[in-house]
Amino acid sequence: MGVVLSMEEGKRGAASIAALVNLTRADMGRVNELILSKAGSDVEMIPEVANHLISSGGKRLRPMLTLASAQMFGYSGDSHVKLAASVEFMHTATLLHDDVVDESGLRRGKQTARMIWGNQASVLVGDFLLGQAFRMMVEVGSLDCLDILSAAATVIAEGEVMQLGVAKNLETTEDDYLSVIKAKTAALFSAAAEVGPVIAEAGRTDRAALRSYGVNLGLAFQLIDDALDYGGSAQDLGKNVGDDFREGKVTLPVILSYRRGSGEERAFWRRAIEQNESGDTELEHALGLMAKHGAIGDTVARARHFGGIARDALAPLRNSPHKTALLDVIEFCVNRVN
Amino acid sequence: MGVVLSMEEGKRGAASIAALVNLTRADMGRVNELILSKAGSDVEMIPEVANHLISSGGKRLRPMLTLASAQMFGYSGDSHVKLAASVEFMHTATLLHDDVVDESGLRRGKQTARMIWGNQASVLVGDFLLGQAFRMMVEVGSLDCLDILSAAATVIAEGEVMQLGVAKNLETTEDDYLSVIKAKTAALFSAAAEVGPVIAEAGRTDRAALRSYGVNLGLAFQLIDDALDYGGSAQDLGKNVGDDFREGKVTLPVILSYRRGSGEERAFWRRAIEQNESGDTELEHALGLMAKHGAIGDTVARARHFGGIARDALAPLRNSPHKTALLDVIEFCVNRVN
Repeated sequence: MGVVLSMEEGKRGAASIAALVNLTRADMGRVNELILSKAGSDVEMIPEVANHLISSGGKRLRPMLTLASAQMFGYSGDSHVKLAASVEFMHTATLLHDDVVDESGLRRGKQTARMIWGNQASVLVGDFLLGQAFRMMVEVGSLDCLDILSAAATVIAEGEVMQLGVAKNLETTEDDYLSVIKAKTAALFSAAAEVGPVIAEAGRTDRAALRSYGVNLGLAFQLIDDALDYGGSAQDLGKNVGDDFREGKVTLPVILSYRRGSGEERAFWRRAIEQNESGDTELEHALGLMAKHGAIGDTVARARHFGGIARDALAPLRNSPHKTALLDVIEFCVNRVN
Repeated sequence: MGVVLSMEEGKRGAASIAALVNLTRADMGRVNELILSKAGSDVEMIPEVANHLISSGGKRLRPMLTLASAQMFGYSGDSHVKLAASVEFMHTATLLHDDVVDESGLRRGKQTARMIWGNQASVLVGDFLLGQAFRMMVEVGSLDCLDILSAAATVIAEGEVMQLGVAKNLETTEDDYLSVIKAKTAALFSAAAEVGPVIAEAGRTDRAALRSYGVNLGLAFQLIDDALDYGGSAQDLGKNVGDDFREGKVTLPVILSYRRGSGEERAFWRRAIEQNESGDTELEHALGLMAKHGAIGDTVARARHFGGIARDALAPLRNSPHKTALLDVIEFCVNRVN
């Protein structure tokens, strides 16, 4: 079924997040405590729904970025822990709402909250977590951080709405697609990385470096995510291979295959994406067309392109274990299996 | 069909918001401009969906409370306009999500956004407006206001989740019901009223007075709303009479009728609320039982109780046109027809 990334690359990817994990281990312990505590409520259903997703084994990459980017500029206070938890709550809220919007059945290999508690609870607990995220930011009291993160919240929602317009629309260009993933995914990576130097009172150049690192890392991350939807296995992904195909999502592998395809191939894509003829047989055929046109390989190549920009964004910063760890994250994202 | 409030009371109510409207007219012009501008986005669907609800003729009571409560303490800056717009956006976001959660077809006499653009757009545009609300608060830069409004956002979501638990549950007590409406409705009235004195740098006593006024006004407002669902006409309400009944919502008129009813009557309520036997015939019967037990009248009496507390909350403040206008709002809420 067209597994594109070799195991070797996968292992290298899996290894390369280790430095970030090690550097942020102690602080992440506090972030995880804070997450559990702030997901609490006297309203019983809230912690139930929230913890279902919180405990589902996400990597917590975004809060680790916040912690590392604060540490690397010598930050010694407590606020980065609260900001990191805020960032993870913003992400969790988005996932809860996404699953409702996409009508998803599985997330990270588990039933989605909406399948267990219904769409209603998913929408409202998402709203609760977003509220809690803002409360933690307000506790930190940095208007600059509030500005960055509230702007990100708006942009993420814009990206999700843009994505509705892109769904089932094969006239979507690569540029349209990039606008969507920049808003829905890269904006939060960027905000997560930028609030580190801000809370550490680093200079404008350092802020700009981390912001640029974050946005390009986020683009690479989402491109690989969209490639993996056609190239991984359900176990690796925690979701079903071909989910995007069945939902008629127009991601870059589809865009490239459609644009590079013959008239007959385009007719196939229209039936599959626009008319929901997207069963197992069609998925098999789609994977064949992607292989023929190098669509997955080129999606990964685009990810490497943005990974390179992220790398250069950090280049001017002095060497440190944190800088090395953040550079490793780029490799992890570009080479990851899940 | 049991219209409980006489036309005379209705007219008195309609007249009594006039002072508030007059005092805030100039500022509300700026709030409305800001609302239109901040509902804008390059993503076309966002202003479409947002303006559908924004232009649907809500009274904008909450932002007027913010403006009046800032003016009455001599505030002369611009921030109250932004805070008022934030409050209205928080409210609009909640309505968009509510309609998805309740699967509502009509709101203020118009089709709901979810019927026209789907649940997906309603969830995401709600998220966008909430993000924009926070951005405006951040622009104002008052951490105290951010604290009040972000706490309200969390509490509102908690209230909505609580309401899910109350739905179709006839064991709900009056206390449970009060907890729900305090969170889902009164919290935003309270925040809207409190940020006025905060931004005007009034003292703690003034803040406490407006907060107490807001929460009790909100309780009265929601109680009347729930009474009107069994006592108004579709044209007055902008929604269908008996919507709550058909959705199996356990509001105070139902709670009182159920508790005061005979065994046979309770069996009727169980079939209606728990087993969805809630057609026009059942609604007619329900209205008869409510009349028999004085359930609507006593719901209105509870509203008057909280209205009285709101009135006393303002008592220590020196007399002013603003104080008079805010007192009038209590009468408006308790006596309103729509």
